[in-house]
Amino acid sequence: MIISNKHEVATKGQGDAHDVTGLVTRDLENSGVRDGTVTVFVVGSTAGVTTIEFEPGAVADLNRTFESLAPRRGEYAHHLRWGDDNGSSHVRAALLGPSLVIPFEDGKLLLGTWQQIILLEFDTRSRRRELIVQIAGE
Amino acid sequence: MIISNKHEVATKGQGDAHDVTGLVTRDLENSGVRDGTVTVFVVGSTAGVTTIEFEPGAVADLNRTFESLAPRRGEYAHHLRWGDDNGSSHVRAALLGPSLVIPFEDGKLLLGTWQQIILLEFDTRSRRRELIVQIAGE
Amino acid sequence: MIISNKHEVATKGQGDAHDVTGLVTRDLENSGVRDGTVTVFVVGSTAGVTTIEFEPGAVADLNRTFESLAPRRGEYAHHLRWGDDNGSSHVRAALLGPSLVIPFEDGKLLLGTWQQIILLEFDTRSRRRELIVQIAGE
Repeated sequence: MIISNKHEVATKGQGDAHDVTGLVTRDLENSGVRDGTVTVFVVGSTAGVTTIEFEPGAVADLNRTFESLAPRRGEYAHHLRWGDDNGSSHVRAALLGPSLVIPFEDGKLLLGTWQQIILLEFDTRSRRRELIVQIAGE
Repeated sequence: MIISNKHEVATKGQGDAHDVTGLVTRDLENSGVRDGTVTVFVVGSTAGVTTIEFEPGAVADLNRTFESLAPRRGEYAHHLRWGDDNGSSHVRAALLGPSLVIPFEDGKLLLGTWQQIILLEFDTRSRRRELIVQIAGE
Repeated sequence: MIISNKHEVATKGQGDAHDVTGLVTRDLENSGVRDGTVTVFVVGSTAGVTTIEFEPGAVADLNRTFESLAPRRGEYAHHLRWGDDNGSSHVRAALLGPSLVIPFEDGKLLLGTWQQIILLEFDTRSRRRELIVQIAGE
């Protein structure tokens, strides 16, 4: 069985992290599917999905690492093309990736206690993000 | 239903990015599957798959970030073993990962308008890459 | 058909890499499933999964890159919260990601000859890791 849900998540610009574990858990419970995988996918090329211990310190540390990797105020060839200012967003998003696959069993996500699913905004402005939660299983 | 296709993609060495969105879209259309996920997987340990806005600037920015992370002309323990020159390729590929999972609905990939699927070559020479496109759904 | 296996892997602290290809291959053979995907998922927020050519040089090169990205002895906001010393572990794990999806065909994983699946420990101490191997297919 395959059940897809779309959610809109309002984000506040680069580095804004949203814990979407509760949302995914509710979709899974509502589906009635017992065993399988959930695919969490963010639509767009300037955001990403991963897991982390969702507390402000760890999120800040992750963002600081992305800033050292692809500094927001660096020079990007992408800016020359469109006059955009979000070259750092594209690089960070391509590195992290837009999707995550999580197995579940007996209707429960197989996450660790300190492991939350996050949507991480990389764009330099607020966005309304479309997040797909697709449940496949039996 | 599960349908697997293999494609060969000729690449031109480190940093060569191929937009494979059209290829994946055609496989999906030909499959007749309406709802599910596509897994895009590159065989081998010196290439990766992700999504990006496919324009030369963003791709160049991503490659520059990989060059700062794992410089092509750096020193690698891997070189000492085999006399290879592609230590940077292995590091970049392990970081990016070989696979990507994209949900689709009503026979359409749920990608953003500016979000393309790319195969990114990291090896230091031209390769013929095997790309797996597996469609699972109903 | 969906078959989930849980494995315990004993790891020895930051940078310890385990080749789990054999374990995944055996699970796949035992399942009798012919075509589909395997999802390999590590439970917890301080470890990751990827593919690499599993030889000590390439693994050391990857770890050195993680050390330059998120130095073990750096300063982390996460440390201030819990008195932990594993801020670098959380950053590295979030970047690499906890899951990997690999297609298989005729009961064989579609990996390259030099492409192994690894569980990479990022925590600063030994752990007993729970690794989920979920086979979905027909």
